[in-house]
Amino acid sequence: MEAAGRDPGWSYARAGVDVSVRSRALSAFLASVRYVPPPSHGRPVDLPGHYAGLVRIGRETIAVTTDTVGTKTLLAEQLGRWEEVGEDLVGVNVNDLASVGARPAGLVDTILCAHPNPEAFSAIGRGLNRGLKAAECALLGGETAIVPDIVAGIDLGGTAFGFFPRGRHPVIGARIRPGDQILGFRSNGLHANGFTLVRRLLEEYRTDLTRPRPGTETPVGQELLVPTRIYTRIADAIADRGETHGLAHISGGGVRNLVRLHPHVEFVLDRWPEPPSLFPWVQSLGGLANDEMFRTFNMGIGFVAIVAREHLAETRRRLVRAGGGDAVEIGRVERGSGVSLPSLGLHYSGYE
Amino acid sequence: MEAAGRDPGWSYARAGVDVSVRSRALSAFLASVRYVPPPSHGRPVDLPGHYAGLVRIGRETIAVTTDTVGTKTLLAEQLGRWEEVGEDLVGVNVNDLASVGARPAGLVDTILCAHPNPEAFSAIGRGLNRGLKAAECALLGGETAIVPDIVAGIDLGGTAFGFFPRGRHPVIGARIRPGDQILGFRSNGLHANGFTLVRRLLEEYRTDLTRPRPGTETPVGQELLVPTRIYTRIADAIADRGETHGLAHISGGGVRNLVRLHPHVEFVLDRWPEPPSLFPWVQSLGGLANDEMFRTFNMGIGFVAIVAREHLAETRRRLVRAGGGDAVEIGRVERGSGVSLPSLGLHYSGYE
Repeated sequence: MEAAGRDPGWSYARAGVDVSVRSRALSAFLASVRYVPPPSHGRPVDLPGHYAGLVRIGRETIAVTTDTVGTKTLLAEQLGRWEEVGEDLVGVNVNDLASVGARPAGLVDTILCAHPNPEAFSAIGRGLNRGLKAAECALLGGETAIVPDIVAGIDLGGTAFGFFPRGRHPVIGARIRPGDQILGFRSNGLHANGFTLVRRLLEEYRTDLTRPRPGTETPVGQELLVPTRIYTRIADAIADRGETHGLAHISGGGVRNLVRLHPHVEFVLDRWPEPPSLFPWVQSLGGLANDEMFRTFNMGIGFVAIVAREHLAETRRRLVRAGGGDAVEIGRVERGSGVSLPSLGLHYSGYE
Repeated sequence: MEAAGRDPGWSYARAGVDVSVRSRALSAFLASVRYVPPPSHGRPVDLPGHYAGLVRIGRETIAVTTDTVGTKTLLAEQLGRWEEVGEDLVGVNVNDLASVGARPAGLVDTILCAHPNPEAFSAIGRGLNRGLKAAECALLGGETAIVPDIVAGIDLGGTAFGFFPRGRHPVIGARIRPGDQILGFRSNGLHANGFTLVRRLLEEYRTDLTRPRPGTETPVGQELLVPTRIYTRIADAIADRGETHGLAHISGGGVRNLVRLHPHVEFVLDRWPEPPSLFPWVQSLGGLANDEMFRTFNMGIGFVAIVAREHLAETRRRLVRAGGGDAVEIGRVERGSGVSLPSLGLHYSGYE
């Protein structure tokens, strides 16, 4: 059903992102990169399509993730507010580390810009620092390139790496089985995904970003910028437990991200909570189908844990102490494959 | 003498790169990022201004570097040749790891582009694979973002991390002392630095990139694209030895990079070999001063090792086995500070 049942409204393709061309280019790239180093240079763990790359070095396993804030920086520029995306730079990366149960150790940033503006850089730094505090992660270096011939505005990218405290194994989803419960943790808004689409809608419908949406008090521009919630303490609190079978950051690709954890079970999301009003507002702005919404946005749940049913109570106790007391049961694992939201008639079979 | 004695020719500032504005923005950014995580999240090693960030995790020390290929990708695009810059993506990062004596373990790439072209991506992958082979490094992940509103063409960035095999300490330059010898290893051309300036010159003087320079046979465009030489095996062969006091990648900033190793000695480069003819050709194209050339380009030497004089012979033997038989003595360490090339009357006191 992945491509079926769409309303004739807006979609990512109409917003200028052709996912299939991207996939073809990426396949061509990956087909060329086949080199495997000798074991004296570390032993990579084969986890294609997962959230993080893993490599064993001596007794340690190191996890690495890399991501950019994407076109959310263009909205930041439009509004002249840079702290939020600075914080996002941490969140988009460390939440992927959290998805394999790794504890963050370090981040490096890459700032590409046309013209460096000390005030914007200072604000990015303040936001980044807040993100590092939330993730308990060090900034270990970075690159700032002034490349007006390559970028317009600012691109914010980063790479985070983490490790597994003594006794902890990477949480990769292999132990997920029918009967497991799916816990969801609320998001802070759109986080840093879907902004190419949202920006097109805001432009098309000439939305005044300085005014609040009906029933709210924050200007909508500011509401859209709210930084990605950081889930690393939540993951860290439960990743040591063998009963935590899977962890997933609901980032670009929406609920389809769950497929990355296990291809041979079905994630049945039959208790998905009412999304906060920002999501239906975006949906109605563009006349978007539910299918497009759930494949693009986090829809109110930014992180997911898959837990053995019999350990739910103990898991909840640990979560409360780690700031994860908002966990709600959003569904369960069944026999089958893909991700479904039965009440909306949605089923996704793959991630891309 | 950093700003003195310039000819009225081209310079980086005239080519549109204002280094002081970049420095101010970067300082504003770094002043905001002060968070230090608890030791349970790894113990960062304080090495400001050095080539790599270091963090101790359990018994391992992990080194991280991040860099982009910069505006060399614009020349690649102009020529429709992508393999070389794909290989550069590895070189610009792993050579910085080599500068602290770390052995590469993994790389992640970030490709930002306006429109993904499968042929270009395939060529980038082939080049990247060649670089990984040369560095004996695994590709552990990556991010491909199609962001036509942010980039024109393609930006290629990456982050590499490495480790120190049992018994090896990071080579940070602290042991460098007067009397040490400075060995230089030849470069493959411009590598991936100085391209904003070079591209402006090529454009200004309408250079035909499809024709060779006088006395050569390769089209000059192709000659300029030759990928960064990878020095990781060279560094790996001598980094275990306590007599290897310093290692330095001669990247953006030219010979000034040596100041990063030790602020309280003088690197006297009194035997710098005649630069390959590409460098004087670029110099004459723009009427560039020697000062500008040595602060911008590698001038024929892409990597440097600082070695205790009494261990020079043994070091040479190890280098031959690791593909570093081209090492030449280019100078020595003296009391003082900064970097000097006495025969050209040049002295650099700092890196930026």
